[in-house]
Amino acid sequence: MTPRTKAIEFAERQEDKTVNELIDFLTIPSVSTDPEHKKDMQKAAEWLEGKLKSLNMDAVHIIPSPLHPFVFASKKSKNVNAPTVLFYGHYDVQPPDPMDLWQSEPFKPEVRGDHLYARGSSDMKGQVVACLKAVQSVLEVGDLPINVKFIFEGEEEIGSPSLIPFLRENKDLLKADITLNPDSGMLSPDEPTLTYALRGLSYFELRVYGPSHDLHSGIYGGAVHNPAIVLSKLIAGMHDKNAHITLPGFYDKVRKLSAKERRQLAKLPIVDSRLIDQTGSPAMYGEKGFSSVERLGARPSLDVNGLYSGFIGKGSKTIIPSYAMAKISMRLVPDQKASEIREMLVKYIESNIPATVRWELDQFGIGNPSISDVNHPAAKAMAKAQKQVWGVNPLYKREGGSVPIVGHMQEELGMDSVLTGFGLPGDNIHSPNERVHLPTLQKGVLALINFIYNYAEKPGK
Amino acid sequence: MTPRTKAIEFAERQEDKTVNELIDFLTIPSVSTDPEHKKDMQKAAEWLEGKLKSLNMDAVHIIPSPLHPFVFASKKSKNVNAPTVLFYGHYDVQPPDPMDLWQSEPFKPEVRGDHLYARGSSDMKGQVVACLKAVQSVLEVGDLPINVKFIFEGEEEIGSPSLIPFLRENKDLLKADITLNPDSGMLSPDEPTLTYALRGLSYFELRVYGPSHDLHSGIYGGAVHNPAIVLSKLIAGMHDKNAHITLPGFYDKVRKLSAKERRQLAKLPIVDSRLIDQTGSPAMYGEKGFSSVERLGARPSLDVNGLYSGFIGKGSKTIIPSYAMAKISMRLVPDQKASEIREMLVKYIESNIPATVRWELDQFGIGNPSISDVNHPAAKAMAKAQKQVWGVNPLYKREGGSVPIVGHMQEELGMDSVLTGFGLPGDNIHSPNERVHLPTLQKGVLALINFIYNYAEKPGK
Repeated sequence: MTPRTKAIEFAERQEDKTVNELIDFLTIPSVSTDPEHKKDMQKAAEWLEGKLKSLNMDAVHIIPSPLHPFVFASKKSKNVNAPTVLFYGHYDVQPPDPMDLWQSEPFKPEVRGDHLYARGSSDMKGQVVACLKAVQSVLEVGDLPINVKFIFEGEEEIGSPSLIPFLRENKDLLKADITLNPDSGMLSPDEPTLTYALRGLSYFELRVYGPSHDLHSGIYGGAVHNPAIVLSKLIAGMHDKNAHITLPGFYDKVRKLSAKERRQLAKLPIVDSRLIDQTGSPAMYGEKGFSSVERLGARPSLDVNGLYSGFIGKGSKTIIPSYAMAKISMRLVPDQKASEIREMLVKYIESNIPATVRWELDQFGIGNPSISDVNHPAAKAMAKAQKQVWGVNPLYKREGGSVPIVGHMQEELGMDSVLTGFGLPGDNIHSPNERVHLPTLQKGVLALINFIYNYAEKPGK
Repeated sequence: MTPRTKAIEFAERQEDKTVNELIDFLTIPSVSTDPEHKKDMQKAAEWLEGKLKSLNMDAVHIIPSPLHPFVFASKKSKNVNAPTVLFYGHYDVQPPDPMDLWQSEPFKPEVRGDHLYARGSSDMKGQVVACLKAVQSVLEVGDLPINVKFIFEGEEEIGSPSLIPFLRENKDLLKADITLNPDSGMLSPDEPTLTYALRGLSYFELRVYGPSHDLHSGIYGGAVHNPAIVLSKLIAGMHDKNAHITLPGFYDKVRKLSAKERRQLAKLPIVDSRLIDQTGSPAMYGEKGFSSVERLGARPSLDVNGLYSGFIGKGSKTIIPSYAMAKISMRLVPDQKASEIREMLVKYIESNIPATVRWELDQFGIGNPSISDVNHPAAKAMAKAQKQVWGVNPLYKREGGSVPIVGHMQEELGMDSVLTGFGLPGDNIHSPNERVHLPTLQKGVLALINFIYNYAEKPGK
């Protein structure tokens, strides 16, 4: 038996144990956006530290950051010519609310049928545990054929604010031939997927202030500009009737899709009927002149993520609210720059807001879009590994989501990423009842083991 | 000494007691919109029942309604030719939130300087206590020169849903020559005011539903119509650039202002500098072609009272919300009909909402606008009473707020109202730190005593 076969058999025997380890990790409510979970963030980092130490790494460190710590580990192969893979993951999760829509508690993982339900099960503690299990399986049966490094962050769900300075200060520590990033997903359980492009993100909170206090809408209605209406007009004007975004200069740097790529994207099974099924939307909608798959991967978007003003309880309250707030975020595509979006938004607001209100703008997340080389030896090693496990070649797709580290790795360290993952469209990530499909996650462990051996056989940058 | 003089002296001796009675009443958190305060509503009704029984009324009843009970009382004069006055009031109050802006607790009344701070102090438990004290003072020193009836409701702040059926079923019980309604206010402590016109109200909650659950804004952004954006566009389109309301047919029945009334309104001290001072708005704003005083009293308005969608906590959450909600209300003027507004709103929504979302509309409050006869003998008796106390003639004004009972009394019982009150613009009604100016409230007690004797001297319908 080859080490590869032995490692795969080990992983297969460990399948139940893998699930139990994941359940243990998922009970830690590591919600990065909520200051009340600060201690849980530390606990999740320590959980990873413990797991990495049990794998007998050469080095394991928790590295503090201004907000939530990084966890780093490394182990060298005995083969001095072995390539180095940096496994990336994040241990933070989205907030669980709205709580009342969960069928089981978000931080009390529950297996129902083939799925494990918990916040973070798919995005991405499940993926992190799969990487750890793959490396463990290889170590269990012999020598490491590649050098491995692990870097885990705790701020991905809030836009990775500490990441760029961390990358700049730790270039040597993180140096590798490729990053293996399993924070993307598959199109279906039978369709392994490699993601070659990611959108970037610029996330804002806009607040519009009118009267100094809530006013009686009878006494003052008609003579005071209502900040909720002012904000609604601002939001309404951010798209024209063709669903183009109206911020000045927004499309100037958007890279045009080639005819060839449009043909390739058209072949992907991302069709409207499937998207309607996944989202429950009455119909799909978007920028005129583009298909849904193009809108999702290759075109930028602007969404309102949250909206608040005045009285939102049951029944009625007859007030003119003193202020209104919207969380507004844009997904960016190459070659837009996340850092240039704020100025466009400010210009738009300044040109459109009336003198009857005041306004404030805060920025939260920021991340540039990215495109990766699908012909990198590591990308080919992963494609081969997926074929070995699923029996079919992977689909190559653009991803609408943002994984800021991919762009940052390119920009700061000159390092490409192989972006894949074993989550599915129905996993409800960022939603109530997040889940992971356990048979698919187990296949992911096997694919990662194959990737390690494949890349060792045909290494390169 | 005449009975009038004796009654006034009694009320002056009772001034501290009046304040203490009001404080006692204000400690009951009778928030009509909140089901959790159902028992407090009953408690407030019983407080009134107890107070009325102590005045030795001929009859005192708590009358159940589908929601919150009515309180009725009556006492006849020995003079068989005496006119009958129906005193109206409401014992419910607005919700106190936002709680963190209160300097003292909303239901722990606190006297600071000349003001008493508590939710309901001005709107309108203070006014109710003033009426009770005036009638008590007259009873204390001799016979009642008029017949008095009292009707108190507990649903005014939620649009008086039980009122119309109650009026229809109790026409004889409530029969009177005039309603004395102190739920309006004064323009300043030195300017007693009679209100001759009120706006009506139609209050709605509109909900727009998109995807069946919150979606990841990266994965789906650009191909799913965001319900918060759809709702914003609907709201934005409800006013044109001249701040005219665009609901089809909305202005068809609006009674035009005569040149004479415009001249009279222009003389009122409701000027923009004063309104900016009261509201804290950077500037006043409203329908083109009208002054602020006209916009507030004689023109209809449309406001967003509340707005909600998605994630509104601290920080960021990258979702496309599954739904968005707005509370939207219109203030109506003669001869608009509150019952016709829903259809206009539905038509507007149907014409403007895209097929990418579903929607639902609920209606809460409803009330017609009204105009009263300033030459009614009771109105003249009140004008004279105000001159007797303040030394100046009252201002006659239109009121932007809605007191549905005034219109309902006209429509259902054919009865006019004298609408006045002793609250002030700075009382923060419907806002944190609601207060009442105690010296002005005490003058109100004296004016009400004078009104009773004046109207008995020159009665009529």
